[in-house]
Order: sequence, then structure tokens, then C-alpha cells
Amino acid sequence: MTMLADLLSTVFERRMRMSGPARDDARSTEELAEALVGADGEMSGQNLGRLILDRFSDMDADARRAFFDYLATAMDFDPSAVRDALDAYEAEPGRATYRRFAAAAEPKRQEFIRRLNQVPQATGELVAMRAELLRYAKDDPALGALDLDFQHLFSSWFNRGFLVLRPINWESPAHILDKIIAYEAVHAIDSWDDLRRRLEPVDRRCFAFFHPAMADEPLIFVEVALTKGIPDSVQDLLSEDRSGIVAEEADTAVFYSISNCQAGLASISFGNSLIKQVAVDLSMQLPGLKTFVTLSPIPGLVAWLADQGIEARADDQDRLRGLAAHYLLEAKRNGGAPRDPVARFHLGNGAQVHKVHAGADVSDKGMAQSAGVMVNYLYDLAKVSQNHERFAASGKISASSEIRSLSASGKKLMAEELGT
Amino acid sequence: MTMLADLLSTVFERRMRMSGPARDDARSTEELAEALVGADGEMSGQNLGRLILDRFSDMDADARRAFFDYLATAMDFDPSAVRDALDAYEAEPGRATYRRFAAAAEPKRQEFIRRLNQVPQATGELVAMRAELLRYAKDDPALGALDLDFQHLFSSWFNRGFLVLRPINWESPAHILDKIIAYEAVHAIDSWDDLRRRLEPVDRRCFAFFHPAMADEPLIFVEVALTKGIPDSVQDLLSEDRSGIVAEEADTAVFYSISNCQAGLASISFGNSLIKQVAVDLSMQLPGLKTFVTLSPIPGLVAWLADQGIEARADDQDRLRGLAAHYLLEAKRNGGAPRDPVARFHLGNGAQVHKVHAGADVSDKGMAQSAGVMVNYLYDLAKVSQNHERFAASGKISASSEIRSLSASGKKLMAEELGT
Amino acid sequence: MTMLADLLSTVFERRMRMSGPARDDARSTEELAEALVGADGEMSGQNLGRLILDRFSDMDADARRAFFDYLATAMDFDPSAVRDALDAYEAEPGRATYRRFAAAAEPKRQEFIRRLNQVPQATGELVAMRAELLRYAKDDPALGALDLDFQHLFSSWFNRGFLVLRPINWESPAHILDKIIAYEAVHAIDSWDDLRRRLEPVDRRCFAFFHPAMADEPLIFVEVALTKGIPDSVQDLLSEDRSGIVAEEADTAVFYSISNCQAGLASISFGNSLIKQVAVDLSMQLPGLKTFVTLSPIPGLVAWLADQGIEARADDQDRLRGLAAHYLLEAKRNGGAPRDPVARFHLGNGAQVHKVHAGADVSDKGMAQSAGVMVNYLYDLAKVSQNHERFAASGKISASSEIRSLSASGKKLMAEELGT
Amino acid sequence: MTMLADLLSTVFERRMRMSGPARDDARSTEELAEALVGADGEMSGQNLGRLILDRFSDMDADARRAFFDYLATAMDFDPSAVRDALDAYEAEPGRATYRRFAAAAEPKRQEFIRRLNQVPQATGELVAMRAELLRYAKDDPALGALDLDFQHLFSSWFNRGFLVLRPINWESPAHILDKIIAYEAVHAIDSWDDLRRRLEPVDRRCFAFFHPAMADEPLIFVEVALTKGIPDSVQDLLSEDRSGIVAEEADTAVFYSISNCQAGLASISFGNSLIKQVAVDLSMQLPGLKTFVTLSPIPGLVAWLADQGIEARADDQDRLRGLAAHYLLEAKRNGGAPRDPVARFHLGNGAQVHKVHAGADVSDKGMAQSAGVMVNYLYDLAKVSQNHERFAASGKISASSEIRSLSASGKKLMAEELGT
Repeated sequence: MTMLADLLSTVFERRMRMSGPARDDARSTEELAEALVGADGEMSGQNLGRLILDRFSDMDADARRAFFDYLATAMDFDPSAVRDALDAYEAEPGRATYRRFAAAAEPKRQEFIRRLNQVPQATGELVAMRAELLRYAKDDPALGALDLDFQHLFSSWFNRGFLVLRPINWESPAHILDKIIAYEAVHAIDSWDDLRRRLEPVDRRCFAFFHPAMADEPLIFVEVALTKGIPDSVQDLLSEDRSGIVAEEADTAVFYSISNCQAGLASISFGNSLIKQVAVDLSMQLPGLKTFVTLSPIPGLVAWLADQGIEARADDQDRLRGLAAHYLLEAKRNGGAPRDPVARFHLGNGAQVHKVHAGADVSDKGMAQSAGVMVNYLYDLAKVSQNHERFAASGKISASSEIRSLSASGKKLMAEELGT
Repeated sequence: MTMLADLLSTVFERRMRMSGPARDDARSTEELAEALVGADGEMSGQNLGRLILDRFSDMDADARRAFFDYLATAMDFDPSAVRDALDAYEAEPGRATYRRFAAAAEPKRQEFIRRLNQVPQATGELVAMRAELLRYAKDDPALGALDLDFQHLFSSWFNRGFLVLRPINWESPAHILDKIIAYEAVHAIDSWDDLRRRLEPVDRRCFAFFHPAMADEPLIFVEVALTKGIPDSVQDLLSEDRSGIVAEEADTAVFYSISNCQAGLASISFGNSLIKQVAVDLSMQLPGLKTFVTLSPIPGLVAWLADQGIEARADDQDRLRGLAAHYLLEAKRNGGAPRDPVARFHLGNGAQVHKVHAGADVSDKGMAQSAGVMVNYLYDLAKVSQNHERFAASGKISASSEIRSLSASGKKLMAEELGT
Repeated sequence: MTMLADLLSTVFERRMRMSGPARDDARSTEELAEALVGADGEMSGQNLGRLILDRFSDMDADARRAFFDYLATAMDFDPSAVRDALDAYEAEPGRATYRRFAAAAEPKRQEFIRRLNQVPQATGELVAMRAELLRYAKDDPALGALDLDFQHLFSSWFNRGFLVLRPINWESPAHILDKIIAYEAVHAIDSWDDLRRRLEPVDRRCFAFFHPAMADEPLIFVEVALTKGIPDSVQDLLSEDRSGIVAEEADTAVFYSISNCQAGLASISFGNSLIKQVAVDLSMQLPGLKTFVTLSPIPGLVAWLADQGIEARADDQDRLRGLAAHYLLEAKRNGGAPRDPVARFHLGNGAQVHKVHAGADVSDKGMAQSAGVMVNYLYDLAKVSQNHERFAASGKISASSEIRSLSASGKKLMAEELGT
Repeated sequence: MTMLADLLSTVFERRMRMSGPARDDARSTEELAEALVGADGEMSGQNLGRLILDRFSDMDADARRAFFDYLATAMDFDPSAVRDALDAYEAEPGRATYRRFAAAAEPKRQEFIRRLNQVPQATGELVAMRAELLRYAKDDPALGALDLDFQHLFSSWFNRGFLVLRPINWESPAHILDKIIAYEAVHAIDSWDDLRRRLEPVDRRCFAFFHPAMADEPLIFVEVALTKGIPDSVQDLLSEDRSGIVAEEADTAVFYSISNCQAGLASISFGNSLIKQVAVDLSMQLPGLKTFVTLSPIPGLVAWLADQGIEARADDQDRLRGLAAHYLLEAKRNGGAPRDPVARFHLGNGAQVHKVHAGADVSDKGMAQSAGVMVNYLYDLAKVSQNHERFAASGKISASSEIRSLSASGKKLMAEELGT
């Protein structure tokens, strides 16, 4: 279809441009933005929107910063208008007064972003626009507020109900696989041959969420290994000369890598949906699968041990496993949530801390972060809801008895080493 | 794929239900709704949401009304919380204070609806839910406000950028065609043979907008006849024994019927986009097409004439054309917009009042509404933007010189008949 | 995609015609045919082929007959050339002599037909051409031989390995459904509503074979009812007000109608593949299905009884069932095969005569052919191969014990009534 | 869909095997082959066929040779049966006698191969089987005859009308691209990055023919560069740091590489169809394209010059161009066809010898074969039919006047250098 699609888009664009606004529209981008928000039909809106998006894409860093400042300030809401509308609403609650209030309480920039999104292909450009915004938003309160508006709209647009789960395999389009290579964030893919090793064997799977309006861009993906028994090392899992198994023989599905792809979708979470749905789908397809686990890094272990005044010492592996179990179950950040970010994610999903393995990731990054220790989080489909509720309500962490006893020994070890 | 899809959904549902909440959950729907809004992960949210949607679908009218009342009142926003948040924001504008304000100003029911939408297949059910709500919302201010929240969210979800244009033809799936028959609102389709006459000939086209999350439901569709010259009667256009032409011979595309399909998407407008995009696509495909017009009803003509104390009299066709032209150009409702709703729609899109025809729709409905008169609105792609701007800014109606002179004679006629 | 496909084909055809032979080529169709067979590149062949096909489609009956005569005689093989080639081959068997022999033994018309098939869309036109040929071939030995060449080539082109099984349901394209209505040969479909009743309910299925080069034309299709227990009447099965069941509750799949669609594919058999593959697919999808049976007409019963001097008498139903069983098991045509054509088909596939039902088809056709009796042929997947082998090797008919004892009583009855 | 397809095939195969012949069938492969040809239903045939294909795939070279010998001899036709059938046919020509003759004249192995092809997925395996056969067939007359039967059947199955043209680009599935890398026969693709350079830029295209029964296997593909003017060197065309152009700016499409993919389809020609159809499609899509040329190797130049006693001498480039033009126009093999195989292919398609370039392929292979000279064959859509006819009828080669005068000077040079 590519030929036809090219043909179509070429002619289409030519025709559209005939009736669209001249590219050399003399108005400033800010004036165009005002016109877009004010336009009362989407007819001219699409042309205005395309012009604004094209201008943004051509802007240098300073111009973009200025554009964001404009949205954050000139298109902010007006507190006094909110107060007036609120008074009117309380005086006579109803459709008209509520409409006035809702309009007053919403910054004009939200409507502006929605109208930009009416332009064909705009969704991906808006996600990229927010990725750009996030560079500045941390240190600037007004841009932080603007970012909340992006986040609010994106939560609505990238609603789980609109996402599509697609398998990624060696039959997937090359331009999608290109992006899998680029976006892999946990265990880097260093070549097409490496990618093929992760996708082509019958005991390997990969799945990604897509949004219909950004069909060429994976949003998040997970890589899965089908194994007999729970693996204790990522080196073995990814080894070039491992011997594969027939998928039907596997009893375990190992989620060994989960990567978010879009910086502009930060804080829009779909990871837990992805894992759960993939687990359900795989269990349908391969009834022999009984165990769904991750093989996860423990990014905060070494830093935490150092904070406690404890050296990691990769050579004493039993000691390390105890310390890691103790860290995962007991180390908290302010507010009481687990200190380890990966633990927070999986426990929040209803998983259980199941096993820890020393010498499991001997890459430079693995040794630096966790002295080579990794952890399996177990997704027991029959218990995830209950685990999740308990964790959400009371912070209670689900853990195997093996982990509990390892944690106890780790605690004792620490006390001894610290002389407390 | 149907067989596989069936297979999939069966097994899938079985598995999902295993780990989901019991259908006999003892909590009230209101308690479930609270739980859904409060749930801090979508994990359990999907199960809760499915349960709530299923319960709603089983409710009788009273229970639904009570459910809407609950959403409208118990899940409303709290004005005092808004005021406090506003104070805090003004004291120190920034991300945290803006987040607090935005949260306070948005009724909880918006988040509730968004979370329902995370459930697979929920979008269509929510559209149906709003269709139900609209029955009550007119007379109830609180429900009117609730409806605005639905409308606000739907505007975001059914953003033009997310819609897909698909041709509807004799190769379309029967279950979609079923809906075309059901939803046709202008010139009823009375059988599959009638439908075939509108879809199969090479000089007939039909296009619809779809949303990816409701793939089986057209949102709006337009029927098009390709003709030589502008037709002056819908009877001829739809006649069983008309002789067709080869598409390449046509110089005119006539949009003779536009139907909205989803009552639950009232006030979410996509009609202008549809016409414009279809016009662009057709002009690409058939370079011989020079003229894009509607053949439209004039639903308010007879009533307006009666208001003026003028009898319509279908037999004096020249007189009628003058009266109709005058009505279209001069009759206004409060606020100054054209009185005729179809005129408002097309003029708002940037179309021109181009021609009027007497004896053009002699169906019962056509005679009752407009004494048989119909009108062509012209979509001149090179002028729609400009027409639209002028109409939006100053209410100026674009009309052909023929229509202008007809209107003048109509005005004169009326004055004479009324003795003024 | 229709719009694009239209666009494509229009431009494509325009361009192709520019460089193709003029439609007003002065050569006779016979000369064109000679040129096509002689052309040593497919380049000009496609243009020649299209021209010949278009001419054929414009011919009247006489011209077509003359065209077939030409193929049958002028493009026949040359016996003396075969003899010479055979001598040469026997003198020195090898690639070159075999090539010469094979070329001599194959009538030129085979190559002619193969070259016509290189033209886009030609396959369906060639199938229609053979359907036309079959009208004349019965009474004309030379055309009979020509038909064998068509049949030989079609067997190769419509090889089972090239066919695609597709479900037909209420989501199928209307133009395909149109053809299902037209081609249903057993129990006529009298309206779109009737069709919907056979396709839309969850306990009804339909499957068809398609060939990739004739994607819009079903070749053969089977209609299936999912039931609890074996049904004893087609009226009940097709009743408008029957109460359906959930597919998962069914224990039986009833093949109640099988229709060949293409007269031009006579004697190219795919029926047995279709039934077997549908049975396998359904048993995968619905593990609850234990029984796969037909509900079949007995078209030759009344005629055979009359031949024996026995009156059918639809009111004595037990007697009729005995006679029917006896007919199915014992009535043979010359050569020893079962006299009943439907019985030959299913027994040849490895099915078993399982049950007979009186009053099972009370339509005019059913009463006239079989006095209302119908039969279930059972497809026991574990036994079809074995049944088939036995039937093929020795003519042994597989039958249930119920049928065997019915047949015995039927035989006795006949002897008594005939006084023998 | 991969997951579902996996699911399907797994369950499907399990069920099929239950009712199929045991894999440990005690019969020899020859006995199975006899049974397959004799089987009078495809029912058991599919199981037999699968068993035979699996056995073949497990055979070593000797066993395969023996299997081919068996087909060539035991399944040959019987000359005396042909003579008898011929006598009967001449005595009374008609359907029955022709059927007998056609059956006698066709070796049983043809029916054997057709029946193997009824097995799902068999087509590709049969193509591979012939590739294997071709290793032995050259030196063995009986195997040569067997190969002709394969060729005869494949010509019918891979009929142009059954082939599908698909664009190959950076959105194509990786497993297809894998094969493009493997099959490129002219200018090797040495990495995925090299492949991307040939597929991703907007001024590069690639197209392949596929057969529906071998959907994952390209049969032949052509790589195209869109350029301004005719390029004079393949190095420039494939250079890593070339600067691309917008497709709409191109006036020339250069077919710079055509590769057959399936050794088992030797002598089944589709190259000329491919070039012609791609030229037509591209000219539709990009009306600016005026010139369609190849940039082709001249594989036989150096060898021919050596035969004449002339040294190639890559440094004198004008001389070389003259010699090359002379070679292309005048060097013939026995029978009068051009000596150069690439020239035979393109001239047979109706192309013209248009330009020659020295220093155009300085790779080792290019220098060794043609001292770096390359040639453009021009496909003038308005003249290909006529060129083809003349070349086919009289061997007349179409050449530009530039080439004609170069050839004349080359001839003169040779005469001088040889002192003749």
C-alpha cells in the first residue's frame, strides 16, 4: 500500500495547501494561537494548527521556551473570573452556570492543545512537544502548571481503552523494530542480530502498546522469555549460544525487560496493564505456563547499602541475597513507599517479591547498581488484585517465605556488621 | 478472523473472570463508583468498571435516573475547596498549587467516567449512557451539568485527529450496512435493495467517520451522488429507474444526505470535517469534478411563512422559490443566526446558498416542511475558509447572485401579499 | 480502500491501454489466438489476452460455439507428431526428447488457456468461459475433449493447497453475501432477513473456500447449525422463531447445506476438504462439540421406489424410514456405487449413514424427492480415513446399527409389498 | 495476529495428527508415493502427502537421488500405452478416448506432484525439492525429463495472473527483508544499514512478486533509484553519503538490480512482467518520471574480448565504451541471440541499448567481468511491444544512435588492434 499511500498524500497535500493559509502567514505564532483558540469551526482550525505545529518544529530552543512561556502565562486561567463564575454557580447551580465555571476554571491552553490535536498526525507531535517542555518544566513553576495540562489531556487521550496490544516479532515492520532497538532501556540491544535473538526464537516474545493515532510509535513494550523453571541470571537468558526450548514445554514466562518509549508520556502509566494483559494472553495461548515472573534489576541496592554504611561486596553472594531481600522489604522512602523504584512499580501492580539471585547481572551497570543481584517479582493472576489492594491500603508487601527468611538474616547481618 | 476472535474472547473472558471481582459483589453501585475513583491502579479498576457498566445496563429507568443523580450531586465539585485552592494558587502560583486547584475544580465524576473508559469496549457503552442521560438532562439543572462533563470528555476523545474516514460501499460488512439503514435520518432507506441502489452504482458514494475504539459504529455518514450538472430534485436522484453515468463523466458531487448516528454524541460536531474531507478526497480521485453541492431540505420554511401570515401554496413554484430564498437569507433567530438549522450548519461551514428548487422533495415530509422546496449549498473549496470567517465574524451570508435576486423578489412578494 | 483502488485501476487501465493493442485490431479472434500462443514473451501476451477475453465476452452464442470449435479442432494435438516424438523418445530417452514428446502430446489450446490466465482478473473469466462451454460439450465429442483440457488446468490451479477457507458471517462484505444468497442450492435463502437468521446467531456458522485470484467469488460454502443433539427436521432448524443456544452449550455441529458456486468448476471437487477442515476448526474452537453430522436430502428415494413399483406414502413414517435406510445401503447404480448422489459424496468422504428422519423436509421439493425423509451422515474424525479407505477399496458402506436394522426391516417390507 | 496464528496452528496440528497416519508408517516412501497417486480422495491424500514431504526433508543426498530416480523411472509414462490410446483416439475421437490418451501421455509423477501440492504449505517445499533436483538433472537424462514435469507444473502454478506485486520498503516485515539481503544477486547488501539505505530514502523503491501460497517468500525483486538524469556509475548511486532528492523532482527511474530468489523456479520467467508493471505503477504515482532505464552489468565483456584476442584495459575509457557497444550489438552466440545474458533478457523484453559508461562499477566483480563498464537499457513504454516483436521475429536490436556510432568505432578499433 505504500505506493498508494504516497500517491494519496502527495495529491492530498497539494490540494489542501491550495485552500490553506499561506505558509508565509505574516501573523506571529502567538497571534496564530489566539486565532486557533478563537476559531469557531474546525474548518480553518486545521490549517492554523498545521501552521503552528510546523513553526514549532522549526523553532530553536529559545523560541520554544518563549512559546511555552506564552502558553503558560497568556493562556492561563483568570482567578477572578473563576471566583465570579463560582459565585454565580452557587447562586443558581445549573447547566449554564456550570458551563461558565468550567470554562473559567480551565486555562485556554487546554483548548489550544485540543485544537492542535485535530490536525492529522498531530498527536505524535504533541507528545514530542511535551517531551521538549519537560526539559524546562522542572525549574519553572508556570511551565510546571502548563505540563500538568498536557498530562491531563494525555491521560484522557491515552486512556487504556484506546490502546492496542500488538505482538512484536521478526515479522514486524523494520521501522517499528528500529524503534524497539532505540527505546530498549534495560538491557541494550546492540545490533539487528541481537534483536533477532530476542524476537525470532519460539521461546521468546515481545509485546507493545500502540495508540491508533500514532500507529508507528510503540508506547511501551515488554520482552518475555519462556523457560523451564525460573532463571537466575540475565546473562544466561540472553546468551548467544543458549539452547532454546519448544514453547509448549515452557512452564514459566519471564518478563525480563520493560521499556517506556515516549519521554513525552512521562507519568502516563500503562506498564501494569501491559504486564497483566500479556500474562493473560500467554496463559491462554500456552496452557502449560504456570508461573509469570519478572527478572528485574534492583537499581537502588548499592546506594542504599552505602547510605547505611555497608559495603556491597559482590563476592559473598549469600550475604548479598540477604541484604537485597532486606532492602526490598524494609527500605522505605519518605511517605512509607518502598525505596526501590522498580519494587514500587511491581508491588503497586500486585506482584510478590519472590526470589533474589546474586551474580545475576554482571554487566557494568548491574554491578554498579546492585552488585549483580536481581530479583523475581511474581505475578500470580489469582492474587494480584488482593496483593494490590493490600499494598495500596496499608503498604503491606507480599513476599515469599524464602524472601522473608532471607530478609530476616539480612537484617541480622547488617546489625552485626554495624555493631548495633 | 471471526472464528479466532470468538475463540480468543471466550477464553479471555473466562480467565479474566477468574481473577476479577465476583459478579455478586455485595457493594452498592455507588460504593463501587467510589471505589473506582479511589482505586490507585487501573489493575482492579478494570474489573470494577466492568461491573459498574454491567449493572448500569441491567438497570431500569428509575435506577438509571438515581445513578445519574448520584453522579451529579455526590460526585460534584466542592466550591469551597475550589476557593481555598484558588487562594493558595494565587499566593504561590506553581505546579503543586495548580494541580490542587485543577483537581478541586474538576468534579470527581469526570475521573469516574475516564476510569470507566479504561474498560475494553467501554467507549460505546459510555456514548449510550450519555444518550440515556440526555432524556433527563433538559429539565434538570444538575443533570445538565453532568451532561456537560460527558460532553467535555467526549470532545477530547472524539477529537477529529482520532477519527478515521472510511468509504461505505457494497463491499462493506453487512453489520455496518445494517446501521447505515437504521441511522439514515434524511431520506429513509426502506430495504436492502434501496441501500444497494445508493451504494453499488459507480456514480454513488458514501463515507463515514469511525472511532478506533468503536470500530463497528459509524459516527456520521454522508451520501453522495455524482452527476452531470446540479440536480433539481431528490426524487430523480433516488429514482429506481434512473440511468447512471460513468464516474469519470461527472462534473458535480451532490451531498444529498448527512446523518448523525450516535444520539450520545450530540453537540460533538464532525459534520463539517466530513464534508470537507470527502470533497477533497473525491476531487483527488475524479479530477473532472468541479462542483461540490448539497441538495438539502429547508425544514423551517413552511413554519416561518405561517408565522409571517403567508400561505406556502406549493403550486406557484416561482413564488415559492422567491420566498424560500428570502427565508434563507433574511430569517434570523434570536442572536442573529439564520433561523433555518440546516442553513446554520452549512453556512457555518463556509458554504454558499447557491440555488433553490421547487417540487424538489414531494415526500410527505418534504411537502409539510418546505412545500417541496430544496436548496443547494455550494462548497467551493477555494472559498470555504473565507466564507466561514466572514460568517463567523459578522454573520455575512454568502449567496449566488441568482439567490440574491430571488430573495429580493420574495421580499417584495411578501410585502405585497401582506399589504405592507 | 475502495476509493484508492478505483483511482488506481482507472489510471492503470488508461496507461495500459495507451501502450496496448488497439481495441480495433483488425485481426480475427482466431488470428489473435494464434498470435497469443506463438508470442514468446508475456509482454505483448497480456494485451493480446485481454483483447481475446473482451471479444469473447461480447460474442453471441453462435460466435462462442464457433470459437470453441476452433479451439477444439485447430488447436488440437497432432497424432502423427506424437508418434514421431514417441519414436524419438524411445530411441533416446532424455530431456530433449521428452520435451518434444510432451509438447506434441499437449494440445496447443492448453498453452492458449494458460496464457489467457496471465491477464489480470482472467481466472474468473476463464471459469465462466468453461461454464459456457459445458452447455455444448455434452453432445459434441470434440468439445468434450476441449472441456477435459479446461478441467485438467483448473485441477492444477484450484489445487487444495491454493484455496483459502474464510468464515462467512454478518460481518462479511455485502457483495459476498449477495453471492451466498444467489448460490445457495439446497434450502433457498429468500431474503436478507433469512440470510441474517443463518449467519448472525451465535449458534450458526458458514464457511467458504476462496481462490486468491478470484477473491470476490466463493467456490463452495457450507452452512452449519450448532445444536444440542442431532436435529430431526430442517424446518425446525431454520424456523424463524426457534430459540437459539449459546455456542459453548452445543454438542453437535450440523452441516445442513453445501453449495457449489461455480458451474465452470464442475468436477473440480473441494467439498470433502471443506467439510473436514470446518469440522477440525470447529472442534478446536468449541471443545464441547462431539458430533459432526449432516442433515441431508435423499434426492433419489421416491424415483427409486417408483422404479421398484413401490409407492412412497408420506403418512406411514416408520415404513418410510425403513425404505429409506434400505435405499441408502443397498440401491446401487451400474458399477456398484450407491445410487443416491448425496450418499456417494458423503460415503466417499468417509462418513457413516447415521440416522434417517421422516417428515424432516416438508417443502415441495423435499416431498417430491424423498417424501420428506432426510438423513444424517456422521463425520467421525477418528474414523473418516478408515471408512473412506474401505469404501474406496471394496464399496463397503459404514452405517450405524440403527440404520442396519432399519434397512433390514425396509427390505422385508418391500418384499412383502411386492409379494416376492 | 502472530499469537493467534501460533495458537491456531498448534491446536490444529495436534488434532490433525490424531486422525492422520502414524509418523512411523511402516511403508517405504515409494509405497507411500504409489498410495498417494492411487488415493481417490484428497482426504487421506493430505496425510500421505505430508508424510512424504517430511520424509524427503529428512533424507540425505543419496536417498534424495534415489527418490528422484524412482519418480523418473517408476512413475514415467508408458509409450505403448500412449500408442494404444492414440490408436483408439484416432479411431473415434471424443471425450473418453481423449481422456485415455491424455492420461497415458502424462507421467504419473505429474499427478504425484499435484497431489503433494494439496498439502498446506507444500508449494514452497516443492520449489525447494526442484532446487535439489536441479543439482542432479544436468547430467542425467531421466532426471532432466523429471525436471521438465516440475517446470511444466510450476509454469501453471506461478502463472503471472496468480502473482502479487508488493512494494518492499522499510515498513516491510523483517523476515522478508532478511530474504532480500540473502537473495540480492547483483550488488550485495552487506548489512541492515546498507539495506536501509536502499529502502528508506524517498528516492529509492523496491518491488517484489509473491505467490499467495508462499506468502513469506519473494520470487523476484527489483531495486529502483529515482534520479535526475541517467546515472553513469553504480558507486555514486549506492554511495553512503549521496544527497537524496524529493521523489517528485525525479525524471528518471533506474532499475539497478534485479534478483531471482528461488533456485527452484529456474526457467519460470517473471522478470519482464516485473519491470513493466513497476514502470507503469511508478509512472502513475510520479507523473514527472519520463525515463525508465536499467543500470546493468555486462557480465560477458571481458571474456569475449579475450576470446577475440583483445585486452580490456580499464584505463582507456573511450576505447572501452566503443568495445562494449560493439559487443552488445554484434556479439552473438550460436543461434544468433546476443551473447551477453543480461542483454538477452532486456532486449527480449523490448528494451533498447541506450548508453554505456566506463568506470561505472569498480568493484572486484565489476572490473573482472566488464573492466568496470556498465550499460543502460531503456524501457520506453510506448515502444517496448514493437521492440519486442522485432527482436523476437528477426533478432533486430534496438539501440540509440549514440550506441550505434560507438559500436562502429569499437568495431574499427578492434580491426586495427587485430591488424585485420
